[in-house]
Amino acid sequence: MSDRIYNFSPGPAVMPEEVIKKTQPALWNLNGSGIGLMECSHRGADFLAIYKEAEATARKLAGIPDDYAVLFLQGGASLQFTMVPMNFLTKDGTADYLVTGAWSQKAVKEAKLFGKVNPVCSSENENFSYIPAIDTFRWSSAPAYAHFTSNNTIFGTQFRTEPVPPAGVPLVVDASSDIFSRPIDVTKYGLIYAGAQKNLGPSGVTLVIVRKDWVAKANPGLPTMLQYKTHMENESMYNTPPTTGIFVLNEVLKWIDGQGGLGAMNQKNQDKARPLYEFLDNSKFFRGTARPDSRSLMNVCFRAPTEAQESDFIKQATKRGLNGLKGHRSVGGMRASIYNAFPKKGVDELVTFMKEFERANQ
Amino acid sequence: MSDRIYNFSPGPAVMPEEVIKKTQPALWNLNGSGIGLMECSHRGADFLAIYKEAEATARKLAGIPDDYAVLFLQGGASLQFTMVPMNFLTKDGTADYLVTGAWSQKAVKEAKLFGKVNPVCSSENENFSYIPAIDTFRWSSAPAYAHFTSNNTIFGTQFRTEPVPPAGVPLVVDASSDIFSRPIDVTKYGLIYAGAQKNLGPSGVTLVIVRKDWVAKANPGLPTMLQYKTHMENESMYNTPPTTGIFVLNEVLKWIDGQGGLGAMNQKNQDKARPLYEFLDNSKFFRGTARPDSRSLMNVCFRAPTEAQESDFIKQATKRGLNGLKGHRSVGGMRASIYNAFPKKGVDELVTFMKEFERANQ
Repeated sequence: MSDRIYNFSPGPAVMPEEVIKKTQPALWNLNGSGIGLMECSHRGADFLAIYKEAEATARKLAGIPDDYAVLFLQGGASLQFTMVPMNFLTKDGTADYLVTGAWSQKAVKEAKLFGKVNPVCSSENENFSYIPAIDTFRWSSAPAYAHFTSNNTIFGTQFRTEPVPPAGVPLVVDASSDIFSRPIDVTKYGLIYAGAQKNLGPSGVTLVIVRKDWVAKANPGLPTMLQYKTHMENESMYNTPPTTGIFVLNEVLKWIDGQGGLGAMNQKNQDKARPLYEFLDNSKFFRGTARPDSRSLMNVCFRAPTEAQESDFIKQATKRGLNGLKGHRSVGGMRASIYNAFPKKGVDELVTFMKEFERANQ
Repeated sequence: MSDRIYNFSPGPAVMPEEVIKKTQPALWNLNGSGIGLMECSHRGADFLAIYKEAEATARKLAGIPDDYAVLFLQGGASLQFTMVPMNFLTKDGTADYLVTGAWSQKAVKEAKLFGKVNPVCSSENENFSYIPAIDTFRWSSAPAYAHFTSNNTIFGTQFRTEPVPPAGVPLVVDASSDIFSRPIDVTKYGLIYAGAQKNLGPSGVTLVIVRKDWVAKANPGLPTMLQYKTHMENESMYNTPPTTGIFVLNEVLKWIDGQGGLGAMNQKNQDKARPLYEFLDNSKFFRGTARPDSRSLMNVCFRAPTEAQESDFIKQATKRGLNGLKGHRSVGGMRASIYNAFPKKGVDELVTFMKEFERANQ
């Protein structure tokens, strides 16, 4: 092991070490151009090649067809919470939102500024510890679109598969915390968005995959920067894009490809989360907070019997180089975020420590 | 000299080499934390210290008083074109815009979506080659604010000093291409904004300096991410900020401080641009395109007698390691962007080459 520790941060999160090692020399001199990565024009040949490769690799990994645009924007998922309804919802229209956590709620709040919102389902009654069952879904008659959050970072829950809205209704997903962690059938979606800082790269880049014919039907008269059309027509270069972030994202995408693509990534993520969940299921001390059928492969939330023990656990773990395990205040306890780039060995070390801690505290 | 060439790119632009050298090891392991810069939580102690230092250094450099907020946002100046009128202009209100180039025009276009725009002055009649004289300014009676572009990257013109709107009218500036290149009296402004990618760091970060009491009076009911209030109340961390960019921006600010601050920076920029403008004034071959009283210290635009000679000049310059000299299509010819971090030696080498080229082509 190097001088680096195990980083369980929920985001910005651990990245593949190969990607960091490729980025370091590029900062000084990109491709032998004599100009550093952060300093090269977004209109120059070197950056354009990076941009094209990032788009092509995203298309290859997720099988994104030509009738979808791939955009690299700024503002994170939080700006998408606004851009989606601003572009696609009207005052008298309704959008359907599946409410499975804090991020869904924030998305709903923004949508209400532009039109009506129908909550298709909600798991708020049990502190968002589960993904609601399909038979509880109440779709509205003709929603402008249907929106869900595929993985709930805070609560450690994840949709097993995408919900199916009524025929013809564009499906929109905030996939910030599980994008490209498993195969995705893009053709089932109208729009996919994800902040990069969990599975794709550094913060400050947002990946948007959107059906071109839907963009063409967006609301008119919007501010230029808030129209998907602007970014689609200008290949994300209406204004200066976050060039350094796009370089790193491209390296991450190529790393995923080198790992065998999204299918292989999914297998690795399954294998990585399994020992941790198995241990939680067998522990008489720790307990997982998400309902087993709704568990996330990205964020594993768990608690100890008392808050004092939790605090002690986090402190001892940090000392052992297991960092960033403190859970979100709305769940409490611990959260192990184990995105694509998190090494299996780190999960094994966490389980080992949990076993020791359990023995010492029983 | 190293393996790096002279980079005259208008932005993203050349950065201090010290800053790059500090960024490279931080990517692998930030401050010995065992976690890389791109991977550390924005809520963690390491990043919070960087954020606080960036704010403090900006305040020190520009003498920013406590009644102004310092924000690090995303979306570049282009998103500010929208956020300013969205927050501060109403449908029946008027905003005053000084129209001195393409970026001013883009700002006007967005403002018109929210209210009325009064063009205070314009230099469009002579392809924006000058800054209009004060006696041509036509302020409206009670504008919501007055907006200008302090430096016009494309046309190579720059305000010598800020325009003075009627008493009580907040002054707003797009200072993207000359921010912190010279002292600025922040107290004269309601809001200052600048994309980082010219004088402050990599693309993907926008510096906003705004009077807190004005933010408190902003329009209600706006999308959360598009309210200055949101970012002010959450110290730019309502959502995940562009952490890596803020780290680099902080290093650039500290570098400016180490150079002696904004006064010293201004002197250096004067000394850097002078030989180039002096050469242009004496050349019988090349000619500057901006009116002498309006010349920018950041972007020096010039032309040769024929387009064929210009094309040849750019080609030969590139071969000599003088890169990024092609002018914007709306001016043609050449543009040397010589921001804060551009070394004087590079300007001297450019002048030497221009002399040679002139001799060879006369």
